[in-house]
Amino acid sequence: MTYTLYYSPGAASLAVHWMLIELGIPFEAKLVSIDAGAQKSPEYLRLNPTGRIPAMTIDGKPHGESAALLMLLAERHPEKGFAPSPGSAGRADYIEMMIFLANTLLPAMRDWFYADTDGDPAGAEAVKALARRRIEAAWDRLDAHMADGRTHLLGQELGAADFLATMLMRWSRNMPRPATAWKNLTPYIHRMRARPAFIEVNAREGLSDWQN
Amino acid sequence: MTYTLYYSPGAASLAVHWMLIELGIPFEAKLVSIDAGAQKSPEYLRLNPTGRIPAMTIDGKPHGESAALLMLLAERHPEKGFAPSPGSAGRADYIEMMIFLANTLLPAMRDWFYADTDGDPAGAEAVKALARRRIEAAWDRLDAHMADGRTHLLGQELGAADFLATMLMRWSRNMPRPATAWKNLTPYIHRMRARPAFIEVNAREGLSDWQN
Repeated sequence: MTYTLYYSPGAASLAVHWMLIELGIPFEAKLVSIDAGAQKSPEYLRLNPTGRIPAMTIDGKPHGESAALLMLLAERHPEKGFAPSPGSAGRADYIEMMIFLANTLLPAMRDWFYADTDGDPAGAEAVKALARRRIEAAWDRLDAHMADGRTHLLGQELGAADFLATMLMRWSRNMPRPATAWKNLTPYIHRMRARPAFIEVNAREGLSDWQN
Repeated sequence: MTYTLYYSPGAASLAVHWMLIELGIPFEAKLVSIDAGAQKSPEYLRLNPTGRIPAMTIDGKPHGESAALLMLLAERHPEKGFAPSPGSAGRADYIEMMIFLANTLLPAMRDWFYADTDGDPAGAEAVKALARRRIEAAWDRLDAHMADGRTHLLGQELGAADFLATMLMRWSRNMPRPATAWKNLTPYIHRMRARPAFIEVNAREGLSDWQN
């Protein structure tokens, strides 16, 4: 199994990059700087025709979609227990949570950050207003979900959903109400940011904000 | 394994309802009519606090998210081959496609149909304009994907992604450019609509349009 992750600092590649470090498996990481527009280069578009970050080649074949890459890595390396195995008690909750994060928060974040370039700039404020409403509703839901004292999103065990959720919460850091404003999310965020692999991925990507 | 699906005719429950019939397994289907506002009843909100359709109880426990339910059913009934098994060659493509449909088309369709109620009605046109752009870009992508002559979304075999994609294409039927306007999607749509279980689920839900 060989993995090459194409990442841009702090982009949707972050969760995958972090999980690869947590897994402790060999991989290569290649910088495709969004700030430099490198995700629009012909070389990158051959890997991911959508021009979105991340792409990851798995045994030479390119794949996209951060949530999918996390699910795939979790099942290819079951020894780490980052996803409940098929047939186990927590399996339905895990898939439901991954899909919820992927189809609610990821697209709303896309709207928040790219409304003016994905769509007509004249409509961007309306798109962002709805995005903000949905993002805050999602923090409400996750906050309620964490209110039972669980340490991680799916219980007491670290898993793929935590990497995805933490990345999404990080993206809210400069929003009017960042995820850190929710009382049950704050200790969870601190717990996730204390992980050595989170500190390590921030160092490797040159990120310095939103740390403990 | 006992399943009770809570559905509304033509809603996101349709793909799950259809797949349950394809699987040929026992299940119960309970009508929660969106037209009647039944998804906001206290009884339904106990099953799915988001008030979205579908919910499905699996061995008594409620779960939501149509894409997640399809993935879960596929792996709980592997004898039908509706999802490539973990470790198999097509597994990465399958997860990537399910996530793509879930985080691109599903939320854009939500925007198209519910922009005025999910958000400020004054901004609805801007939200819908961006949604339409994204939906049509997704048909472009799926059309290109089907251009190699494959009969189904992930190759020659029917699977969970086909039920989800067909439901999404159905939702576009009254849009300015429905999915049937894309040349490689049209034969695929006809193929999927010819399936006896598709005809059956339409009959059970009382749907009469968008059929062969």
